[in-house]
Amino acid sequence: MTEDWFLQDTATVDSVSGDRARKRQLSLTKPPGSLGRLEDHAIVLSSLQGRTDPAVDHVSIAVFAGDHGVAHEGVSAFPQVVTTEMVRNFVRGGAAISVLAKKLSADLTVVNAGTIHRDGFGKPVVDRPVARGCGNIAIEPAMTREQCIQALSLGKAIVDGYGRNCELVIGGEMGIANTTSATALAVAMGAGDPRSLAGPGTGLDDAGMEHKIAVIEKAVSRPSTRTQPVDILADLGGFEIAALTGYYLAAAQRGVAILVDGFIASVAALAASRINPGTRDWLLFSHTSAEPGHRRILESLHAEPLLCLEMRLGEGSGAAVAVDLLRSACALQNEMATFAEAGVSTDG
Amino acid sequence: MTEDWFLQDTATVDSVSGDRARKRQLSLTKPPGSLGRLEDHAIVLSSLQGRTDPAVDHVSIAVFAGDHGVAHEGVSAFPQVVTTEMVRNFVRGGAAISVLAKKLSADLTVVNAGTIHRDGFGKPVVDRPVARGCGNIAIEPAMTREQCIQALSLGKAIVDGYGRNCELVIGGEMGIANTTSATALAVAMGAGDPRSLAGPGTGLDDAGMEHKIAVIEKAVSRPSTRTQPVDILADLGGFEIAALTGYYLAAAQRGVAILVDGFIASVAALAASRINPGTRDWLLFSHTSAEPGHRRILESLHAEPLLCLEMRLGEGSGAAVAVDLLRSACALQNEMATFAEAGVSTDG
Repeated sequence: MTEDWFLQDTATVDSVSGDRARKRQLSLTKPPGSLGRLEDHAIVLSSLQGRTDPAVDHVSIAVFAGDHGVAHEGVSAFPQVVTTEMVRNFVRGGAAISVLAKKLSADLTVVNAGTIHRDGFGKPVVDRPVARGCGNIAIEPAMTREQCIQALSLGKAIVDGYGRNCELVIGGEMGIANTTSATALAVAMGAGDPRSLAGPGTGLDDAGMEHKIAVIEKAVSRPSTRTQPVDILADLGGFEIAALTGYYLAAAQRGVAILVDGFIASVAALAASRINPGTRDWLLFSHTSAEPGHRRILESLHAEPLLCLEMRLGEGSGAAVAVDLLRSACALQNEMATFAEAGVSTDG
Repeated sequence: MTEDWFLQDTATVDSVSGDRARKRQLSLTKPPGSLGRLEDHAIVLSSLQGRTDPAVDHVSIAVFAGDHGVAHEGVSAFPQVVTTEMVRNFVRGGAAISVLAKKLSADLTVVNAGTIHRDGFGKPVVDRPVARGCGNIAIEPAMTREQCIQALSLGKAIVDGYGRNCELVIGGEMGIANTTSATALAVAMGAGDPRSLAGPGTGLDDAGMEHKIAVIEKAVSRPSTRTQPVDILADLGGFEIAALTGYYLAAAQRGVAILVDGFIASVAALAASRINPGTRDWLLFSHTSAEPGHRRILESLHAEPLLCLEMRLGEGSGAAVAVDLLRSACALQNEMATFAEAGVSTDG
């Protein structure tokens, strides 16, 4: 792996398969366009997978966990130990993403990208922390550039481990205080100001929100030498956010469709698209989160998600819920009869 | 069956199970409310099913077909024979609802409530037409009150035939020109005026839309003696719309959760709620259609659907797509670990 692997070309989208799928949609026994966004998504999946019978039967999910120094500023409703406790919950099957992965028959990889605690992490956890929690972004960089590249490469290693039959990947995250880091990162990438992007996360009240905004303002106005997108990610991100960014970059280079989850995942997707713009072609968007800043992040990505269910959990959970819609889209494109096959008239 | 079976009480909702489900949601390993509308739907399903472990594994779908005299006014982009051709497509497995029913392992019943043609309807079609097409509502009532009650009872007969394990029902419809009838019916029920409720249906252009609005205005201003909701349904509905209305009424009396599809299905749901207001308790709403009048119908029902995918096909297809979201909602409520079970901290 060269140090700047993430700058190498992403895979090429097969527009010929997309055009063929669009033509097929017009031949199916329904008024043209009447399946709405399911048609659009079947066509896009066709172009990403280079086939007119797209499939998302084999889904791989990875959840990256990391701790954040900025948690010491009191920006979360939950204690920091919850990051580690939830990692154990992921692998034991009790978390939302565990339940949804099982329902989808998707494989779930749980990755410790940098938690403070790691007691009781059994074999199912990919335990490769960059460090024990990142720096407190209110007063110092989250990590060095070298650590950031290590985290990006951790994300790539997960994608590299997937079998050839992988048809869709979902990245999730867990890290107490990571909406604060993600918001600061989004501000630094120009998606909006702290007040328009910050939200209550897991459940802050109004006073908590004001404090969180002040912390984000402090973080983004701290003197730094950041110039390239990778430097911004290193300065304000977190180990799990950087690993998720690397996961997206590697999936786009491999040419696998990516289904993006909520607020933090979308910030990682924005970072990946800034680091390597070709990544954007491989991104599908699952849901608009209840976290108010998410809409602005989506606008920055010119993204229109499939769902809007007021979810705000992270873990990849919103993306996992949306997989079923993609499966319906594929089934309809692949299995419906054409007007000719069914002997149905097309004009009066 | 007494003649006015549809006026008898609907089943009682079990609010105790709903309250227990709400309490359980607060104990699961996630920030309170973070699963958004999936939580709400799991709680409502708990109250409808009288259990805190709701399930929608066994789904029954019925698609009702009927022809409309108003098709002779040139209000549809497709010829009238398509109603019959699509009935055959439903049972042969080539239609969107056929593909989706198979994906869900749902049973699909195809009902001829009153098509003009019926050649080649094999055994899988429940072939019980009230008549060969209903009247042209631009100039005459769609049907008599007796025919309307016959159609309502046809819908009830389908529900009565379902086994005890049925956990959710979906009604769909097929009938060339039936957005015109459904719009006229909605106008007469006070949901809005013709211009605000009419839409392009399967694909009218601007001139076609103006003509359709004029036909609807003619239908609703035609002298009639209608007073009760059933009379309005008889005057302006269609055999498949009335059968669908009866299907909803019978499901609500039996106490089975109903997932409502798009524009025409929502008008039938509104008719059912006007005929017997207790029906409303049993209705869940799947999607907001691309048909512009659908939002007003939904407002009349105080309904907030789960999905908004710009679908406008009918057949029950939007509801079938939304079943997966209800299944995710159930899986999360039933299978997630509680904070206590997972040893996750709840406060700082």
